[in-house]
Amino acid sequence: MMNANLLIGKDTLILPTGFQAAGVQAGIKSGPAKDLALWVSDAPATMASVFTTNQVPAAPVIWCRARREAGDVGRAIVINSGNANACTGAAGRADAERMAACVAQALDVAPETVWVCSTGHIGDRLPMDRVEQGITAAVRELDVDGGLAAADAMRTTDLQIKHWTVKVSVAGCPVTVTGVAKGAGMIEPNMATMLGCVLTDAAVEPAAWQDALAAAVDASFNRITVDGDQSTNDTVLGMANGQAAHGAALNPQHPDWSAFIAAVQEACMQLALKIVDDGEGSAKRITVQVVGAASDTDADRAARAIANSFLVKTSWAGREANWGRVMDCLGYSGARIDPDAVDIWYDDQHAVHAGIATATPYEDVKAVIQQPRFVLKVNLNIGVGEAVIYTCEITEEYVKINIV
Amino acid sequence: MMNANLLIGKDTLILPTGFQAAGVQAGIKSGPAKDLALWVSDAPATMASVFTTNQVPAAPVIWCRARREAGDVGRAIVINSGNANACTGAAGRADAERMAACVAQALDVAPETVWVCSTGHIGDRLPMDRVEQGITAAVRELDVDGGLAAADAMRTTDLQIKHWTVKVSVAGCPVTVTGVAKGAGMIEPNMATMLGCVLTDAAVEPAAWQDALAAAVDASFNRITVDGDQSTNDTVLGMANGQAAHGAALNPQHPDWSAFIAAVQEACMQLALKIVDDGEGSAKRITVQVVGAASDTDADRAARAIANSFLVKTSWAGREANWGRVMDCLGYSGARIDPDAVDIWYDDQHAVHAGIATATPYEDVKAVIQQPRFVLKVNLNIGVGEAVIYTCEITEEYVKINIV
Repeated sequence: MMNANLLIGKDTLILPTGFQAAGVQAGIKSGPAKDLALWVSDAPATMASVFTTNQVPAAPVIWCRARREAGDVGRAIVINSGNANACTGAAGRADAERMAACVAQALDVAPETVWVCSTGHIGDRLPMDRVEQGITAAVRELDVDGGLAAADAMRTTDLQIKHWTVKVSVAGCPVTVTGVAKGAGMIEPNMATMLGCVLTDAAVEPAAWQDALAAAVDASFNRITVDGDQSTNDTVLGMANGQAAHGAALNPQHPDWSAFIAAVQEACMQLALKIVDDGEGSAKRITVQVVGAASDTDADRAARAIANSFLVKTSWAGREANWGRVMDCLGYSGARIDPDAVDIWYDDQHAVHAGIATATPYEDVKAVIQQPRFVLKVNLNIGVGEAVIYTCEITEEYVKINIV
Repeated sequence: MMNANLLIGKDTLILPTGFQAAGVQAGIKSGPAKDLALWVSDAPATMASVFTTNQVPAAPVIWCRARREAGDVGRAIVINSGNANACTGAAGRADAERMAACVAQALDVAPETVWVCSTGHIGDRLPMDRVEQGITAAVRELDVDGGLAAADAMRTTDLQIKHWTVKVSVAGCPVTVTGVAKGAGMIEPNMATMLGCVLTDAAVEPAAWQDALAAAVDASFNRITVDGDQSTNDTVLGMANGQAAHGAALNPQHPDWSAFIAAVQEACMQLALKIVDDGEGSAKRITVQVVGAASDTDADRAARAIANSFLVKTSWAGREANWGRVMDCLGYSGARIDPDAVDIWYDDQHAVHAGIATATPYEDVKAVIQQPRFVLKVNLNIGVGEAVIYTCEITEEYVKINIV
């Protein structure tokens, strides 16, 4: 397995065999920016999908869930930015269906094979005339080199275009896994959406593909937090089109299964870290590691309480360690805690032992916080549960971005 | 029942009969500010208490809990600001006990009748020499007019001194209920503490007093949120010293019980609203009211999700309605939601009906958000559960205050 990005430079997005893409400016956003992305597979692809658990799902989420329940294959994913098509009622659901129908007509495929995502402001109807014109333009521009434009068109407040390609050998045949994503915390005036697509030319059995994507999302996108808000639109879709010609479809019994799922996980993890690195107004990536918890669930609760605390996140922006705020979070996290047993490290600086300050000079701890990346490690010392969450700081700039 | 504050002006704090107070500068804080408060009852008072549920309780919380478990009466409450005496281990617990002993010695009362509170930075030992000198000075300055100085000495980042007095008639005899509090969101570099004292010259049976205070706290301090963080030190103490001479001690069978508990609730609610109004960097008070939920618990979940969302709170700072963010919060709140049944009002402006935008002009909704106080009302339209939470906005100033 090798990271193809390192070989060919940052600004090329490698699509797996049998995929084309396009990104166009449809005029959904007010400014001069691409806002409609299309990812197309030449052959019907086995689909995997993970959706937001928010009880107010956006219209495209409702459409895609129906596709999954019907076991539909995928020929295309169409994505617009600038409008979430959420809280738009029956009319919005019809708009999402219309997006699929337009793509289907232009590509001469069944509408049920077109999967739809939206991201942007909640509560407004899509400008469907512009969306339809955008789809027509995108179909016209479909190209094997169109991936970067498509990833660009998915962005809202993202500063960076996020993609990652991993190559892996399956039965001696090269297989490509390419992930693309958007997300930077609170996106657009009303949204905090994360969207991702994982495209591969591997052939994968449907249940195995679903399990592989769900596990990869759980270990990556579900382990990052910018602000703790969960969106109405969060979606990750996987397309496996089987064009790599490695023979028998992959499943957990295949000798190269573990190499393949490692590639999928690597793509998802790199994208997840890019989202944290692009966190609005943040220049830091903090790895919150909790060990020694009563259970993995408790460790997860403790790590999330720390990573989502605005007290903690603003203290990082102030370049202060403030481990007292971390102790406070542990106390209300819901995890079982013995306050007199807690140890805390900032990288290799041991700040807290048995619940109280160590003799480590505060300036040494503070020096760690001033770095762009550091690990905050908490040992609860009462069990073997572990969890890791990746997060960012909260700055005044973050508030500035989100008061619009 | 009348509000005594309205009669005598803002800058006088009326203590109930048989109480004295003092507030001094002990030098616990670095700047020139009062930081040690003492509240003393001439007679042993029946105590009521409510503490943080944080699993990392500060040393004074541990001391006070032991007093409650022993059923101790109260002669004094000593409070320091500038240092939370939290995460200080056995030495810190001894410091809290020493504070009680010093007060007890100076007043010639039993140490077990002295209740202790601290607020400020977590993780540092108290400067006990200064604390002891401060206690000596405070005892010397005890006075029936010392309440305002004592309330002042409880402050950390609070801009306002918070007190409220209610007078009520019990068996034809005037009874005074005076509440004092401190809290303004995230307090001091490491803390988010709320402390409150409710002093009354009523005689109240111990169990009835505990129930009355707990109910009042639940309906007031537990219904406000600034940032969602829960502190290691949060404490509300009630002292009922029986010096009003109204005869038989109050209990729920007393004919004036409801008037008395209304006075206690009024004092607590006014203090709670003062805390919201003093929310760091905020110039707004927002009442989040959820009705029509499947249960009161669900309504509470929904209201708290909205009131604690940084997406929602930053949108208020931007003077935008952004009801889409409110819908998003409802979706992940854990409350049962039918997205197509939700109605949302900003004061009397009906922004959302049946889950989608109404025809109300956005400018009319936005005009409500620009006011210093407004009500955000959500009707889930699926039951009869209700809840109200009071909160504030999040501004850039808030981050500025907390990055230290």
